[in-house]
Amino acid sequence: MISKSEKTSVLIVGGGALGSVFGWRLQLGGCSVSVVCRSNYEIVKNSGFQIESGKFGNAVFSPDHVFSSFNAAIAECDFYYDYIMVCTKTLPNISNPADVLMGSPINQKTAIVLIQNGVDIEQYFHEAFPNNILISAIAYIDTKQTESGVIVHGEAISLQFGFFIPEQTETQRSTSSVSTDISLLETLEKHLIAGNSGCKILDNVSRDRWLKLVWNSSLNPISVLSGGSNTKEMLANPVLCDLIVAAMMETITIGEAVCKMPLSPTIASSDIPEYLLGSVRKRIKPVYPSMLQDYLNKRPMEHEVILHNAIKRADSVGVNAPVLKTLYALIIGAEKKYLN
Amino acid sequence: MISKSEKTSVLIVGGGALGSVFGWRLQLGGCSVSVVCRSNYEIVKNSGFQIESGKFGNAVFSPDHVFSSFNAAIAECDFYYDYIMVCTKTLPNISNPADVLMGSPINQKTAIVLIQNGVDIEQYFHEAFPNNILISAIAYIDTKQTESGVIVHGEAISLQFGFFIPEQTETQRSTSSVSTDISLLETLEKHLIAGNSGCKILDNVSRDRWLKLVWNSSLNPISVLSGGSNTKEMLANPVLCDLIVAAMMETITIGEAVCKMPLSPTIASSDIPEYLLGSVRKRIKPVYPSMLQDYLNKRPMEHEVILHNAIKRADSVGVNAPVLKTLYALIIGAEKKYLN
Repeated sequence: MISKSEKTSVLIVGGGALGSVFGWRLQLGGCSVSVVCRSNYEIVKNSGFQIESGKFGNAVFSPDHVFSSFNAAIAECDFYYDYIMVCTKTLPNISNPADVLMGSPINQKTAIVLIQNGVDIEQYFHEAFPNNILISAIAYIDTKQTESGVIVHGEAISLQFGFFIPEQTETQRSTSSVSTDISLLETLEKHLIAGNSGCKILDNVSRDRWLKLVWNSSLNPISVLSGGSNTKEMLANPVLCDLIVAAMMETITIGEAVCKMPLSPTIASSDIPEYLLGSVRKRIKPVYPSMLQDYLNKRPMEHEVILHNAIKRADSVGVNAPVLKTLYALIIGAEKKYLN
Repeated sequence: MISKSEKTSVLIVGGGALGSVFGWRLQLGGCSVSVVCRSNYEIVKNSGFQIESGKFGNAVFSPDHVFSSFNAAIAECDFYYDYIMVCTKTLPNISNPADVLMGSPINQKTAIVLIQNGVDIEQYFHEAFPNNILISAIAYIDTKQTESGVIVHGEAISLQFGFFIPEQTETQRSTSSVSTDISLLETLEKHLIAGNSGCKILDNVSRDRWLKLVWNSSLNPISVLSGGSNTKEMLANPVLCDLIVAAMMETITIGEAVCKMPLSPTIASSDIPEYLLGSVRKRIKPVYPSMLQDYLNKRPMEHEVILHNAIKRADSVGVNAPVLKTLYALIIGAEKKYLN
């Protein structure tokens, strides 16, 4: 049985490319970091994560504790975790994303931090854990697991996060038993800064999720459907660039209808696509978007939270989304073909 | 030097899956049929086409004359062909489609028959041969060349055709030196019927091209982009079915704006998609649309005449085409990736 230390306790669920790097920085930033690993459990338990980072150099990250399951992570500790960080892929078409935290009770004082792509990803956890604080987080990071336990991280690392506020009315919220104590966000911020990660507390995390989706809903599926093209290959093709811009503009229009405000406080909506494409053009190395990596490795893609949830929102707010609907249908077809 | 026989003389340019079967039926229907072959010249010259036909049984089709080039087909004959039938793919992004008839003069009494997919395919030939009659033809046939000179034909065989009428005003037409003598169509019809091919003379071939495009602009690119799915795989997927219907409806809307009339004289426009999908569902064997065959064999696809020409028309008549534009951009990207 593991006992509570003085440190802030963090449990990372999903010890892959994302969870390992943030776990590493949080440990260096003063936290006690436990990690639930699946396929790489044995190697991480024995030798830790071998991390090759462009920003931080090479290092071994040995978590304070490594568990092979969420149940073990709960059962073997006599305290509650301050934060449980969910760093798994969100595949609601395959199983309920909240299932990764099922089987053992979670203390109501534990904040659940969702570091996941897409929009409306919080609904699955909100329904399963209505009495826990949900912190919704957006990662800006360039990282991949090249082999079991070996993580290659680039230069970028930043976590932006804020409280998930359910869309019920203010009255409902004020009577909710879940209090959103800002110090929960500030503690996380403090440790991330101490661990040399970028971070930012968000007032309106939904808006920032939509802003990030502008990139994800366009470059991700288009990279897969254009025969598996990376960003350099896509951007060299003017017809594909036009399509990327069309998908981005559609996403912006939906997001603004949902959030009832411009997605960016500083960039005019019509300038967002060129701003994002400009940032990609500047990169020397081509980017392989996450869906493209999944496609190339014949793994399931996160099309539900990156495309389908956006399309459902488009339908509910009455915005046309013919480009996203086309991309979604083709991605579903292509995935079915390679998973079979 | 080959001399004129009593028979109607036909030169097939493009001795592939399409040209060989129609050449075969026309020869059996009483024509003298010459064929220009490229990659399969030697084998066809020596042994003819080996045809395995579900409808007609197995047979060898030995053309009256086999040439290795269009120039040879003209130079080695002391007469003019009654019909030159162009059965090549239309790839205006790679070269001018009319180039297949360049290099030797074509007698103005020769009718040029274009048996090709897509819309606005006649423009390339009309510009190059303004003084020749152009017959625009639509083939309904299920045929492929499985190896050099070996053709597998299914059950369907029909050729629908009519005069290409340039979009200039009636006044311009009446002053044109090209007379459209209906007997040119009737002679072709007579030989096709004698050769047991279905056939139909069309008053408005443009309208029928658009009707056929409803199938081609949807099933073709979607089969490629959904990871290479045949019709059975596509139709088993409701999300893909919705996309197919959306692409079909977009094509119908464009075609009706261009033709200024409903595309079908008998089927309500909104019923056309389900009518076409129903006909596909009835087939026992899955269909591999032509673009899918090209994709699987890493050959160029006919995206310009099947998608781009339709999109240009949509823009010129002010009809939105977001689905076709998305499909086109992705097809361009996917093709570039596999041709490289």
